[in-house]
Amino acid sequence: MNATPLPPPTALDEVLAVVRGAGGPLATETVPLALALGRVLRETIVAPEDQPPFARSAVDGFAVRVDDTATEFRIVDFLRAGDWRPRTLAPGEVVRIATGAALPADGLQVIMVEDTAVEASCVRVLRRDTERHVRERGEDARRGQPLVNAPCRLSAGALALLASLGAATPRVARQPRVVHVATGNELVPPEQTPATGQIRDSNTTLVRAFLAARGLTAQHLRAPEDFAAATTLLRDPAHGAAETDLLLISGGASVGEHDFTRRLLTDLGYEILVAKAATRPGKPLLVARRGTALAFGLPGNPLAHFVCLHLFVQAALDAFAGLPPTSPFRDGLLAADLDNDGNGRETLWPAHLVAHDSALTLEPLRWISSGDLSSLARANAFIRVPAGTGRLARGTRVAFVPTSPSP
Amino acid sequence: MNATPLPPPTALDEVLAVVRGAGGPLATETVPLALALGRVLRETIVAPEDQPPFARSAVDGFAVRVDDTATEFRIVDFLRAGDWRPRTLAPGEVVRIATGAALPADGLQVIMVEDTAVEASCVRVLRRDTERHVRERGEDARRGQPLVNAPCRLSAGALALLASLGAATPRVARQPRVVHVATGNELVPPEQTPATGQIRDSNTTLVRAFLAARGLTAQHLRAPEDFAAATTLLRDPAHGAAETDLLLISGGASVGEHDFTRRLLTDLGYEILVAKAATRPGKPLLVARRGTALAFGLPGNPLAHFVCLHLFVQAALDAFAGLPPTSPFRDGLLAADLDNDGNGRETLWPAHLVAHDSALTLEPLRWISSGDLSSLARANAFIRVPAGTGRLARGTRVAFVPTSPSP
Repeated sequence: MNATPLPPPTALDEVLAVVRGAGGPLATETVPLALALGRVLRETIVAPEDQPPFARSAVDGFAVRVDDTATEFRIVDFLRAGDWRPRTLAPGEVVRIATGAALPADGLQVIMVEDTAVEASCVRVLRRDTERHVRERGEDARRGQPLVNAPCRLSAGALALLASLGAATPRVARQPRVVHVATGNELVPPEQTPATGQIRDSNTTLVRAFLAARGLTAQHLRAPEDFAAATTLLRDPAHGAAETDLLLISGGASVGEHDFTRRLLTDLGYEILVAKAATRPGKPLLVARRGTALAFGLPGNPLAHFVCLHLFVQAALDAFAGLPPTSPFRDGLLAADLDNDGNGRETLWPAHLVAHDSALTLEPLRWISSGDLSSLARANAFIRVPAGTGRLARGTRVAFVPTSPSP
Repeated sequence: MNATPLPPPTALDEVLAVVRGAGGPLATETVPLALALGRVLRETIVAPEDQPPFARSAVDGFAVRVDDTATEFRIVDFLRAGDWRPRTLAPGEVVRIATGAALPADGLQVIMVEDTAVEASCVRVLRRDTERHVRERGEDARRGQPLVNAPCRLSAGALALLASLGAATPRVARQPRVVHVATGNELVPPEQTPATGQIRDSNTTLVRAFLAARGLTAQHLRAPEDFAAATTLLRDPAHGAAETDLLLISGGASVGEHDFTRRLLTDLGYEILVAKAATRPGKPLLVARRGTALAFGLPGNPLAHFVCLHLFVQAALDAFAGLPPTSPFRDGLLAADLDNDGNGRETLWPAHLVAHDSALTLEPLRWISSGDLSSLARANAFIRVPAGTGRLARGTRVAFVPTSPSP
């Protein structure tokens, strides 16, 4: 039944390469700006008109002809931002003008209000230099000039720029349709008191929050470790099985989770690409493909989930979004000794990342077991410890993956 | 009409102190875990039972009595995770047991499956050491022990821990009710082509995205810079004026935005706490209070919005959530010279934060004007440049505020 020969355990970097190679960019869609935060832009945004589109005053003051050297002027208009009343200024005439307002003609200079004295409809210039205090039409960008290049993940600042350019419905990668299944006969929902032998399901909460932080939702299912029942559940058209882009299966521990998930994936028509990862935690990882869809069999323990989500599932999400492959690893300094044991697999060690002075420092967290949730609650990073490494001393430079916003 | 005497411009640190002092913690509510990401926990979570609640096998193997020194055993049961079948083992008996399964009795040791040879219903022990491979009841935490302290912002990992502890509806600070008003006669919505003199409103998009990144939504209004119309709009019970916790007013530039917003706030019953900030950008900032509600008059230019949101509005959100005051500033190193001009106000300079080797480095962005949206699109931080500072050389240590997830 499980006769398919399995590939050997796959090194971490290879797993990343396999995921990136298998997960192609999804199609695009347009979304309103109000829903575009964090989405990946897939079209280049150009200036629809010169930026600024008209010469604007940079200050509150009085617009006069550059060639008019008088010191007393008659105020003939007051232009506020939003106004557009072009006019030719005669010698001795000024227009009062507010910051951001369109200049009424070419060849003007704005004298700051601080450098003037106003009496009724007249203004006397107290000080005048050559600074024009005008933001010229097109000084930021010319019409048609690319201002935001694709692909890029849209930040709040980028969205503000898009708004100012009239890109009110940018074209972005569509979101993947995600199905998550928690398997394991020992699991009960968090709100239920477990009987002896049972534990509360925490992986559904972890997967949901990981996805929510990325603007994604999933359909969450719980399946018994019963092959027929699980297959039926996952084939149910009501769960959109055919349209799934990303299938995440949290392994239970009860009946050989690895074989169970592998058989389930194979039976659903997925091709197994990675059957084991040479990492700790995460060894029983499965990566599989069906057409353009990807599936992950995630080892049931919470730390393995945490690591595999941030390393491998994140790589799949980036590939779906059409982002170029980039290393998830950063460099930091150990804030304390890390007592690794020379394990033959690469170890991903939960850590607390703190900016100290101008350096990124990592405090390795106590790690009782691969199911240790207390360290997970404090972890905002994990450290990459190469295979065969023993104790690493405080101050050692290490590679790490941040898992939360900036420290 | 504007006769109220105004306090002098307020230094940055004082503005932060004023905001923290004025914004008290909001009441609490309970939410399901699925909606709790990023919310601030306001109750201490204790272990509802010993953790783990029963002695569990740490490996796949065979449970035998510690005092049974035989080398061949008869398999009398198979316990999977989720099973609970207590039994007394007689000498020569073993129970096959999966990782995570409850041990059937006290005084047992688990021999790893790798150290055994199985034939039909018998198992021969090839290697045996003193390691018990048991996660003891209560070894992580005792019933009633506090495991997550309040207040803390709930990460994905913290939520997973809460799920495992059965804290399925944690008590968190309720979300503030936010109303945002964009004023300015020069503004048109992003989807509309501006006439000469007009520009597209980008601040609504910026404010919405800033809030969305923090799990918040606001009611967004646009008001003309017409005092009577704006007051009527903001008093409209349909906009929940009475229940507003946080009122954000984006100033227009057309008719003296500062006076307009100040008069509007005063007329709505707010007390002005800060009438000007000694910062660049952000000088025309207003902070006001009405009972437990806070209001900000945000200078209309986008960079001032960016800075004031991340510095001052963030401080208000933290105070509402009941978080203790912490400095928003981190230390980093300049990746290039920063050409400040000795300005008498503290300057917040937009920057691109990058982790380089193990250091946080900041590339100052080109900053044409305080309305420069192009730099805003790239900015993920801003640098604090003290008043009176001229050029700062590459490599100088500077304080900065990160505005996006980790570099």
